[in-house]
Amino acid sequence: MNHSRIRDWGVTVGGLPTGPLNKISDVPGVTVGHATVDDDAHKTGVTVVIPAPGCVFAEKLTAGAHVINGFGKTCGTVQLNELGTLETPIALTSTLNVGRVADALVGWTVDTCASEGISAGSVNPVVGETNDGGLNRASDRPVGRAELNAAIAAACADFDEGDVGAGKGTSAFGLKGGIGSSSRVVEIEGKTFTVGVLVQSNFGRLDDLTVGGRPVGAEIRRILEAPAAECDKGSCMIVAATDLPLSELQLGRVLRRAEVGLVRTGSFVGHGSGDVVLGFTTANRHTRGEGGLRAVTLLTDKYLERAFRAVAEATEEAILNSMAAADTVSVVKNGKTHTVRSLTDFLPQIFKYQK
Amino acid sequence: MNHSRIRDWGVTVGGLPTGPLNKISDVPGVTVGHATVDDDAHKTGVTVVIPAPGCVFAEKLTAGAHVINGFGKTCGTVQLNELGTLETPIALTSTLNVGRVADALVGWTVDTCASEGISAGSVNPVVGETNDGGLNRASDRPVGRAELNAAIAAACADFDEGDVGAGKGTSAFGLKGGIGSSSRVVEIEGKTFTVGVLVQSNFGRLDDLTVGGRPVGAEIRRILEAPAAECDKGSCMIVAATDLPLSELQLGRVLRRAEVGLVRTGSFVGHGSGDVVLGFTTANRHTRGEGGLRAVTLLTDKYLERAFRAVAEATEEAILNSMAAADTVSVVKNGKTHTVRSLTDFLPQIFKYQK
Amino acid sequence: MNHSRIRDWGVTVGGLPTGPLNKISDVPGVTVGHATVDDDAHKTGVTVVIPAPGCVFAEKLTAGAHVINGFGKTCGTVQLNELGTLETPIALTSTLNVGRVADALVGWTVDTCASEGISAGSVNPVVGETNDGGLNRASDRPVGRAELNAAIAAACADFDEGDVGAGKGTSAFGLKGGIGSSSRVVEIEGKTFTVGVLVQSNFGRLDDLTVGGRPVGAEIRRILEAPAAECDKGSCMIVAATDLPLSELQLGRVLRRAEVGLVRTGSFVGHGSGDVVLGFTTANRHTRGEGGLRAVTLLTDKYLERAFRAVAEATEEAILNSMAAADTVSVVKNGKTHTVRSLTDFLPQIFKYQK
Amino acid sequence: MNHSRIRDWGVTVGGLPTGPLNKISDVPGVTVGHATVDDDAHKTGVTVVIPAPGCVFAEKLTAGAHVINGFGKTCGTVQLNELGTLETPIALTSTLNVGRVADALVGWTVDTCASEGISAGSVNPVVGETNDGGLNRASDRPVGRAELNAAIAAACADFDEGDVGAGKGTSAFGLKGGIGSSSRVVEIEGKTFTVGVLVQSNFGRLDDLTVGGRPVGAEIRRILEAPAAECDKGSCMIVAATDLPLSELQLGRVLRRAEVGLVRTGSFVGHGSGDVVLGFTTANRHTRGEGGLRAVTLLTDKYLERAFRAVAEATEEAILNSMAAADTVSVVKNGKTHTVRSLTDFLPQIFKYQK
Repeated sequence: MNHSRIRDWGVTVGGLPTGPLNKISDVPGVTVGHATVDDDAHKTGVTVVIPAPGCVFAEKLTAGAHVINGFGKTCGTVQLNELGTLETPIALTSTLNVGRVADALVGWTVDTCASEGISAGSVNPVVGETNDGGLNRASDRPVGRAELNAAIAAACADFDEGDVGAGKGTSAFGLKGGIGSSSRVVEIEGKTFTVGVLVQSNFGRLDDLTVGGRPVGAEIRRILEAPAAECDKGSCMIVAATDLPLSELQLGRVLRRAEVGLVRTGSFVGHGSGDVVLGFTTANRHTRGEGGLRAVTLLTDKYLERAFRAVAEATEEAILNSMAAADTVSVVKNGKTHTVRSLTDFLPQIFKYQK
Repeated sequence: MNHSRIRDWGVTVGGLPTGPLNKISDVPGVTVGHATVDDDAHKTGVTVVIPAPGCVFAEKLTAGAHVINGFGKTCGTVQLNELGTLETPIALTSTLNVGRVADALVGWTVDTCASEGISAGSVNPVVGETNDGGLNRASDRPVGRAELNAAIAAACADFDEGDVGAGKGTSAFGLKGGIGSSSRVVEIEGKTFTVGVLVQSNFGRLDDLTVGGRPVGAEIRRILEAPAAECDKGSCMIVAATDLPLSELQLGRVLRRAEVGLVRTGSFVGHGSGDVVLGFTTANRHTRGEGGLRAVTLLTDKYLERAFRAVAEATEEAILNSMAAADTVSVVKNGKTHTVRSLTDFLPQIFKYQK
Repeated sequence: MNHSRIRDWGVTVGGLPTGPLNKISDVPGVTVGHATVDDDAHKTGVTVVIPAPGCVFAEKLTAGAHVINGFGKTCGTVQLNELGTLETPIALTSTLNVGRVADALVGWTVDTCASEGISAGSVNPVVGETNDGGLNRASDRPVGRAELNAAIAAACADFDEGDVGAGKGTSAFGLKGGIGSSSRVVEIEGKTFTVGVLVQSNFGRLDDLTVGGRPVGAEIRRILEAPAAECDKGSCMIVAATDLPLSELQLGRVLRRAEVGLVRTGSFVGHGSGDVVLGFTTANRHTRGEGGLRAVTLLTDKYLERAFRAVAEATEEAILNSMAAADTVSVVKNGKTHTVRSLTDFLPQIFKYQK
Repeated sequence: MNHSRIRDWGVTVGGLPTGPLNKISDVPGVTVGHATVDDDAHKTGVTVVIPAPGCVFAEKLTAGAHVINGFGKTCGTVQLNELGTLETPIALTSTLNVGRVADALVGWTVDTCASEGISAGSVNPVVGETNDGGLNRASDRPVGRAELNAAIAAACADFDEGDVGAGKGTSAFGLKGGIGSSSRVVEIEGKTFTVGVLVQSNFGRLDDLTVGGRPVGAEIRRILEAPAAECDKGSCMIVAATDLPLSELQLGRVLRRAEVGLVRTGSFVGHGSGDVVLGFTTANRHTRGEGGLRAVTLLTDKYLERAFRAVAEATEEAILNSMAAADTVSVVKNGKTHTVRSLTDFLPQIFKYQK
């Protein structure tokens, strides 16, 4: 497995400092786990973002969703937007597998709550997806409760990126996509907060690829001797986390800025690209049994722009990381080998081209 | 099974004429099927609205969703609102069962498409729900592919109402709720069109119940000697169909008027009530392989109000029908019998009270 | 001037207690002022809701807007919904007069801020409207800075209702509409909060009129010997205020329940009815110069339903009050007298009919 | 007046061909007029986009609005989004001047309709804005009916760009902004359609400026020896026109892609930037007196991505054109000269730096 990140290639994104891991898990308490299904017929999996320690159902988080382009099957957004709360981990998977993973997430939540004496009679599972049908026999829907449990069990702060979990079968800009992450640190009157992003990248035309502000896609296509793609297929799922104390309205505004990062990598937000942002803050959790009035701390709007810039930069870098960490993947379909190349095969040449 | 309808009790709703069956299936091509799970532990099921004959995936319908109150888990709304198209039947079920039914709907769509030589690589299943946990051990999630297949196979125009299918375990205004339906006919310059509604009723405080404009809830509560309910729990799922040739924008405006019918039965759209409207028109279907420009006919706005009134009236009557057709249901939970009474037990007294 | 209110006629609405004045001004700090233009050609004016004492621009309020049906020209909603803050009084006026009143509100804000040493370089005036063209020669747009200033100067807690200010020329259900108000008190763990509503009523078909749950419109039409109206023209502007400490998301959910009250008076939310809700909370004001993090108190969702019911009840009663307080108004147009009758002309007969 | 355009400097944007003028007026029937107020105290004006010949009020256009960031005062969006129709020209002006221009637009519409025997009793003026308070004494609000009339009278296809009309006082990326325009031509099965954009640019931090994919802002700032800006103030108003036959839903999706172009120039969609897109199609106009059903032609979704790319490219180039055509502007405020430089002062050096 290739563990490179885009900064290893001398590419920097934006001007804000990153957190220690430069991952979504720099937001204290956030962990990520994968389960990968990788056999002859299947390149798929599930990636779980666990937003906080403890029982998320019992101590919900302020959360929201923003649909950049809704050609997608993400479930859970209706309640997320109405109540502004997240009560399960966020799972990402393959398009056709959303129902099974949502059911698994319901089962896991009901069971783990029961073991803590909490009755979860109504659960809103949040599951995002992109279509990995290019490399994966998606109609088999091989991701179920066992895979979800494994991903949750594997969750940690220093998780893998690239062609792993829900990113196993995805492609971005005609190259191998996958899971990527990044973070930014912002300071508010002497206090430090983090904005972290994790993406499942599966979108874009090669000609449009922009790395660190440099439009390199056309050059890579010339090297590859590939024909130009017609349209921007696939999707980009974006999960954003922060410990900034944001209201639901403020959080929603922050989530909308993920599109800036997406566009900066070269996306035109194509018709077929189901680009959805799911996000939460770990501040001001809603605890069971709290009284009628709760005391919370909220960021004032004058500092909100820092979070906007942070989420834009982290999204851009997370997408680039998803590609930098992904290996070339080949599958045999109908007797023909179908290969999706890694961006890292071209980065040395890009630099040479640059100089 | 009680087959009464609210008109059998002398109650009329609104002023527009109904279609021949006074059901959603008066919209030509629409059929409805149920599969009911009814055993000691479970009172639940699935109800499927099949929007049109033929392959819905290959010939999509103009459709949309409107969230009245999003404390609910309906899936499929992101794509429904982005593209304005419906590509699967609409299934209704129990809250915790949405994932399994969505997966079954994906499987069914992939399989039936494959049998027609169509590759369904990306499917947006639309599944609505209400929480039937009062009468049903919902965490078992007993509705799966077999039940979905059975409901689809059973689909017909003159379907049952009441405590059947997805309505088996629901309650409305403290009485037995369930599936109900109604329709209205509107005339546009000599042509006749139909607006039909189907509901899964599972909401409301008894004190607020209004039948045909008469506030009868408090009186029924006195007869029942029941304490006043604190809040408006549960949900009301509303499916609306029409053959009026509406644009997505116009359809969305029509769907929003379902709330008028909901309120006229006594709903205050409570915090916990996940009231969602899903709707479609059978006009102007999107056919595969159509050219770049398509010729369509659209209603002009000056007649749109007729559709508004039709959907409001049909929603109100569908809710009342869901209760009029429902029998009293009892379950034993933890050794205690829990009974939800039928509205029809009280309608004779209401009329007496009225006169 | 008729000062009757709907309760004077024995009609009660809902079950929650009212505030001392049963007006929006029961929310501490809220005042209302009118300026009326009443001459041979014009029956119009402006009504101003001043949301709080002091400089609203310098100490903004958490606020929002909800569009029930957007066939209307309310201005200021873009920023209201983005930032969730109100920085001017809310003015209501005649449809064609919105621009002039918005300009007057900008001028007033710039000037009053300047007198306090505050530079108001960007001001978001919030102005709602309904079309009073039936009784008013609206194209003259006679409401300007002088009228706005007069309305603001006249603002008080115990303001007039009925055919006054922005309600001078409006009609509701074929009878005289106008300005009406009501309030409800809710208790949260021993603390008392108020939800108040003010409406500018100008909507509805007489046949649909429902007073206190009784459908009385058809009977009044028979007495009037009037033909049935075809459609639900006009609009209903609704302003809601509270001192409940709500987040923007919670406030938005409360505002959406105003539709419940509107429907309970008989509205079908017609195509031509520009029904818009503007609302704010006086809690947690945004003060200039506050630091990066602010400590606020917020209501927990479990009590939110009380605010839902309160705004629904207060909206219903405010609409009925707008009609109960309005006198019969006549104008001569093109040599023909056009009269809009007061609801109070029929209330005695309705009661008789009722008993 | 500087009439340069960004292409004159060797910069190309995107890959789609432009229309003959490379302006919004390449969409047949669209014209644009300016009135500029330019004196010692004022640098402001009004720019009017006339969407079609003939009476727009009598023959409305399918239209919509998309709010990228709603820190702005654009009026008319409520009705635009509800009905999906535009019934007046679109005017752009200074933030504080919106009310006066809206009133002027109402007056102009009422008067011109009256002269054609049409009664305009309810008019929805659409007015966008950005804050030109840096160069303009905006609180005077010097743009009124005379200026609006002049702008309408001056409307033509080959209109000026740069520091003219509503762009007289605006700044973009710390340099002089203004009015800019661009267009793209797309082919659908042998037929040719145009997407045109006009912007009023008034946003951005210099450090973020990107011209034709090249991040040049930091270099210009070094040349200028200016300090880094803290935040992205101001706004970008975007008007998009097309003759593609789009439904309201499709048009809305196209308008959302204007953000792609905005971001490609370097915008992070700052908190204070009121970025709003207003758009319309000239296809399928709504004619008065049409029957109950109307026959229309609509684009199928499979070609929609071409419109997405077109609006993104045209928005990016329109912004660059707004800067390329703008001259350096100086004002004296409180005895101090305040100068905003033209981008064209730096383009030669940028090219040198580039080579």
